[in-house]
Amino acid sequence: MKEIGVGVIGMGWMGEVHSSAYINYKLKFANKNISPKLIICSEILKERAKTAKDKFGFEEYTTSWQAVVDHPKVEVVDITTPNALHLEIIKYCIQKGKHINCEKPIGAFPKETLEAYELTKNYSKQTCVGFNYRWAPLVQYTKKLIDEGKIGKIYSYRGRFFSCYAADERSCYSWRFEKENGLGAITDIMTHAIDMALYLVGDIKSVNGTLKTFISQRPVAKGGASHYAKADKNAVLKEVTNDDYVAARISFQNGCEGFIDASRIFFGPTSEHSFEIYGSKGSIKWNFEEMNTLHLFLREEDESAMGYRKIYSSPIHPYHHYFNPSNGSSIGYDELKVIEIANFLEKIHNPNFANFANFEAAAKVAKVINAIIASSESKKEEKV
Amino acid sequence: MKEIGVGVIGMGWMGEVHSSAYINYKLKFANKNISPKLIICSEILKERAKTAKDKFGFEEYTTSWQAVVDHPKVEVVDITTPNALHLEIIKYCIQKGKHINCEKPIGAFPKETLEAYELTKNYSKQTCVGFNYRWAPLVQYTKKLIDEGKIGKIYSYRGRFFSCYAADERSCYSWRFEKENGLGAITDIMTHAIDMALYLVGDIKSVNGTLKTFISQRPVAKGGASHYAKADKNAVLKEVTNDDYVAARISFQNGCEGFIDASRIFFGPTSEHSFEIYGSKGSIKWNFEEMNTLHLFLREEDESAMGYRKIYSSPIHPYHHYFNPSNGSSIGYDELKVIEIANFLEKIHNPNFANFANFEAAAKVAKVINAIIASSESKKEEKV
Amino acid sequence: MKEIGVGVIGMGWMGEVHSSAYINYKLKFANKNISPKLIICSEILKERAKTAKDKFGFEEYTTSWQAVVDHPKVEVVDITTPNALHLEIIKYCIQKGKHINCEKPIGAFPKETLEAYELTKNYSKQTCVGFNYRWAPLVQYTKKLIDEGKIGKIYSYRGRFFSCYAADERSCYSWRFEKENGLGAITDIMTHAIDMALYLVGDIKSVNGTLKTFISQRPVAKGGASHYAKADKNAVLKEVTNDDYVAARISFQNGCEGFIDASRIFFGPTSEHSFEIYGSKGSIKWNFEEMNTLHLFLREEDESAMGYRKIYSSPIHPYHHYFNPSNGSSIGYDELKVIEIANFLEKIHNPNFANFANFEAAAKVAKVINAIIASSESKKEEKV
Amino acid sequence: MKEIGVGVIGMGWMGEVHSSAYINYKLKFANKNISPKLIICSEILKERAKTAKDKFGFEEYTTSWQAVVDHPKVEVVDITTPNALHLEIIKYCIQKGKHINCEKPIGAFPKETLEAYELTKNYSKQTCVGFNYRWAPLVQYTKKLIDEGKIGKIYSYRGRFFSCYAADERSCYSWRFEKENGLGAITDIMTHAIDMALYLVGDIKSVNGTLKTFISQRPVAKGGASHYAKADKNAVLKEVTNDDYVAARISFQNGCEGFIDASRIFFGPTSEHSFEIYGSKGSIKWNFEEMNTLHLFLREEDESAMGYRKIYSSPIHPYHHYFNPSNGSSIGYDELKVIEIANFLEKIHNPNFANFANFEAAAKVAKVINAIIASSESKKEEKV
Repeated sequence: MKEIGVGVIGMGWMGEVHSSAYINYKLKFANKNISPKLIICSEILKERAKTAKDKFGFEEYTTSWQAVVDHPKVEVVDITTPNALHLEIIKYCIQKGKHINCEKPIGAFPKETLEAYELTKNYSKQTCVGFNYRWAPLVQYTKKLIDEGKIGKIYSYRGRFFSCYAADERSCYSWRFEKENGLGAITDIMTHAIDMALYLVGDIKSVNGTLKTFISQRPVAKGGASHYAKADKNAVLKEVTNDDYVAARISFQNGCEGFIDASRIFFGPTSEHSFEIYGSKGSIKWNFEEMNTLHLFLREEDESAMGYRKIYSSPIHPYHHYFNPSNGSSIGYDELKVIEIANFLEKIHNPNFANFANFEAAAKVAKVINAIIASSESKKEEKV
Repeated sequence: MKEIGVGVIGMGWMGEVHSSAYINYKLKFANKNISPKLIICSEILKERAKTAKDKFGFEEYTTSWQAVVDHPKVEVVDITTPNALHLEIIKYCIQKGKHINCEKPIGAFPKETLEAYELTKNYSKQTCVGFNYRWAPLVQYTKKLIDEGKIGKIYSYRGRFFSCYAADERSCYSWRFEKENGLGAITDIMTHAIDMALYLVGDIKSVNGTLKTFISQRPVAKGGASHYAKADKNAVLKEVTNDDYVAARISFQNGCEGFIDASRIFFGPTSEHSFEIYGSKGSIKWNFEEMNTLHLFLREEDESAMGYRKIYSSPIHPYHHYFNPSNGSSIGYDELKVIEIANFLEKIHNPNFANFANFEAAAKVAKVINAIIASSESKKEEKV
Repeated sequence: MKEIGVGVIGMGWMGEVHSSAYINYKLKFANKNISPKLIICSEILKERAKTAKDKFGFEEYTTSWQAVVDHPKVEVVDITTPNALHLEIIKYCIQKGKHINCEKPIGAFPKETLEAYELTKNYSKQTCVGFNYRWAPLVQYTKKLIDEGKIGKIYSYRGRFFSCYAADERSCYSWRFEKENGLGAITDIMTHAIDMALYLVGDIKSVNGTLKTFISQRPVAKGGASHYAKADKNAVLKEVTNDDYVAARISFQNGCEGFIDASRIFFGPTSEHSFEIYGSKGSIKWNFEEMNTLHLFLREEDESAMGYRKIYSSPIHPYHHYFNPSNGSSIGYDELKVIEIANFLEKIHNPNFANFANFEAAAKVAKVINAIIASSESKKEEKV
Repeated sequence: MKEIGVGVIGMGWMGEVHSSAYINYKLKFANKNISPKLIICSEILKERAKTAKDKFGFEEYTTSWQAVVDHPKVEVVDITTPNALHLEIIKYCIQKGKHINCEKPIGAFPKETLEAYELTKNYSKQTCVGFNYRWAPLVQYTKKLIDEGKIGKIYSYRGRFFSCYAADERSCYSWRFEKENGLGAITDIMTHAIDMALYLVGDIKSVNGTLKTFISQRPVAKGGASHYAKADKNAVLKEVTNDDYVAARISFQNGCEGFIDASRIFFGPTSEHSFEIYGSKGSIKWNFEEMNTLHLFLREEDESAMGYRKIYSSPIHPYHHYFNPSNGSSIGYDELKVIEIANFLEKIHNPNFANFANFEAAAKVAKVINAIIASSESKKEEKV
């Protein structure tokens, strides 16, 4: 059993999901003989840091993220802070020689992502980025079908991430709506849609995109309400300065034509991170809202029986068997993070392990984002 | 009961569907007191013309399309010939003062469509174009919901027409794959997708598109096989010179951002002419493959019960009650043409009737097509 | 071209659908060289009879159903009157030696159905009963799959017909709710569900059923409102004396275990006439609400790709090609009646034609109904 | 923080799921301030017991289940052994005064379940049974909708559990197919379907059922292969002596008519544990295969927009928010067990807590099973 010390910076939702994933990794991937050990967690407010320590069984807690990186028993640092802090922490991790698991998008802006990648390109330790949607068993199965040529040459790709989190125009203004703090939907959720496209189809050659802000003002809450809270009717309105919606036609290196878009403001989709792939031998459709279901069309000799097959995630599909031995028994969102961490730990112990998303994957996404933004301004196709 | 004489030019599938639609119009829209009378039909081969006459009960038949237009009892001319003949026949109809019902796209190329529109802009008689998908009761209901503001301001529109008719690369070469005879998917099916977007959301300001030919060669059949037939293995291959696939990001005048694409070669979709509309108060999804089903999301106070409603076409929805009085009893493809002809006849008798697709609608589509082609070449956004 | 004279008795919805079906038969099944000719129609009110004559092009009209049967040019009599009149008309048809096409259930009560069958068992002319749901191309395809052994031994069958036509307890009292005029859901719609089970799986050995009236009173309308109309709040209430809902476990001769039920009062289903078939090699699901879609599961060696295939009705499936040559282009409810009549006319001209529903099919259904009613009273399994 | 010691007997799949659930309970339900502590686990093979101890962090392990019950720090005993051992262990737990969490069905036969209930009826400690499907947030939401009268009076209920685990007739014979070791589908999975019916609709008055064995023989594996393994072609065949399929019409005390069935041998359904509820104001459909999706139909004034709403599990629905704050982000099978254990611990600390499944719930199910078996033999309706 190889032990490995873990420190987690930031104990919001993502920090909790990461911590929980290390614990569940030990329960589900016991055959890997790797034992992550939760050493120390940090949060700005001492009380929240201590609560997190108790809940997840960290040995220590701190209000200083530096203390996490500095800790001699910490070999792996998980960064789940606000995006603006990512780069600074990454730099410090590199200085201290730690493995780094950073939540997407890495940095508040693409140039920070790219800098993080440049700094770690030849780094002796491993990096990991939270493109968790990749790891759904049926997405992995999709990748396998593509790699095996089961759907033939890919003609067309359709990706989207429509989240409803800011759909309500009465929901409160927060840092998320301010361009000084980062881009909008394009970094928050389009990153996932871009990574999925790159992962499944391959490199993107050029893009043609647009960014839009549909809800131009939002009410300012009294006190520090999150964007989930709703303001009262007399609240002061403040300008939204980043994108609600982003869309791009994309052309892949391999000749596939695609379209991806992301929105944070539609009513209808709930958390629709989906893709459709059309190839010369078949098609595949998947949607995170129904992450345990895949729609697969295979070209067959008997045309009368051709149709999209509705397939439920089962132990026969990649990774599912780690979680349960029962056909059609769903796994959940948290399990995606467990697989992510399993692959990260696998990579640390076996640097040749290939099915993995590190800072290079994040950098590829960042370059596509930059090209989309450029295209949005030039009104022309832009090379990635 | 107002009688009106009808002549049909071209008795292929569409000629039959039109003729059948006039007959069923009388059965289903009897309360309109309009009685179309099938006077004469034409086909190049005399035998086929006679067979059509007998089947549909035309009074006469001919091998000359001019004879149809010339016929004194013919007030309405239906044109369902190959696209290349449309314009010439239209001109002759105008000369003879006939109402004109021409199948889409009107002419083999957009400039012919535009010429047809110019010629009829101030024409005293009515024109009609076969954008039949508009007329599905649940598409009409969608239009009504939008007009009534039920889904609020429209943020985003997604349209597509994925037909599988040329998916098999072994299917025979035909005039459809030759650019001299017309464009490919862009006129054959994208026209429908564009019309639907214009009809539901409004005018398009600019586009950003691409055209692709994925199956670059097709086998030449011995004898005059249609593109449904499959060639044998030793068949000579011939270059495909028009588009298999077309895609465009579109920006509407009203601020809505959209994406539409069309393909004739994907395996998976069967006849997926679909749209998705995302608005500030809700969303709507429809797919011709399931034309009697609509997915409607309405923003509500009780968020726990919000979800896409699956609605079946029923007499409460526009036009459905003409066909049957029973909730959830499907109407079929042919009925769309009956509604189309009902509206055409209504327009003839009541020039103020507004819910209608005439040559102006076709011209609007042609302009969008031209802009997509221009953009495909310039790699830039192009104004419509 | 063989001509055959047709008379239609009763010009309500079903009379219109029948008349229309004869007309469309000629357009769609022209290659059969059979030409039904609409001779005479009858309705009690002279005005309605005349309107029907004009609309459908009958040569004559009458207010006397006897006159239809007596007419020397009438070879086929279609009976679409209220159920209580069926048997008397059938008897007269037999006397006059006419082919008989009677709407289901044939008679107001099972014993009338059985009598009609007894009278026609050795009749030299053909009979037909309106079990139209059988004729959907994808139901026909289901039958073909079963007959070819594609889903193996059938273990279990699930049929239902949930209509919403009487769901609203404010909808007016009518003869439909009175047991003197016939049974309720069991004859009105369960008949279809039973016929489907018999057609697809085979004879039923024993049943175990129940009948329920959930909405015990309904408001009486002022004037002769139909059950579609809603009564005002002060309307007098009247007892409902027949069944709103019927359910039965059924055991087939071939060992298959089944369950069928029918309701006229549920909110949710619209016109859900559906079945599910589970066999040793696969499963099939169909629902009339989406009659152009079939869900087919086939056992395969590659278990990772197994799933219900969603198949759209296409020319490759039985009968579809008569209506259009286009994959995935829906046919509608009315077309089911066209196929029904096509098979009836085929049977008349070719008595060996087997895929057919005549009075024997209706009698089999009636026997199952009788057994369900008996079981409902005895609280025991009853033989059919 | 209230600590409570836990011992787990049997470390197969269910033992692992229970152990894992206690660990995740602490992460997800931290606000409850209850801290279950894993004290000791047992397995027959020492090596497996030790492995389980290490994986889940039990303080000790043993090969003796008595040692678990005896352990002074163990307050709660989880029983996940083969069914035949349940009763003996339960008795010993009672003797030692421990809280008992036993996997369904409790005992190998209904009479054992009933005895377990009798013994614990007045027991001072709490009992719990593993009816985990109840706890899906959308099932809990269904219960809430029913309790609030949102779907009105319930007319009809349809429940099923179709698992494919024994669908392959080549899969090996095991104790599961032998009646000496217990009933077949009726206890293995029908128990869940019965519990769901009782939980959602209420007590069952009478039943009318049947049991069938469709695959009468299965191959005997060399060595101790599980029923998941496939035998080779020359394997000896052995008689299956318990039920593959069970079905019952059920009448509830409140007048609702229902039907439930369960199968272990169908190809098509994967793990289809589903229900449909039809009421005077609406309908609800749920299926475990898509456990994060609910289909809800609500009667409304605007009939044009009525349709089943497709609702994704979200924090607004019961329990979901414990797992993630994100609309439409799925939870998985394991989380159902976490909720189950959360409710068990809640019940232990607050005996008035009502939303709970203890041995009384299991006994109610057992009575229904007995009635179905009796009815299967008498061919009559049987009182529960």
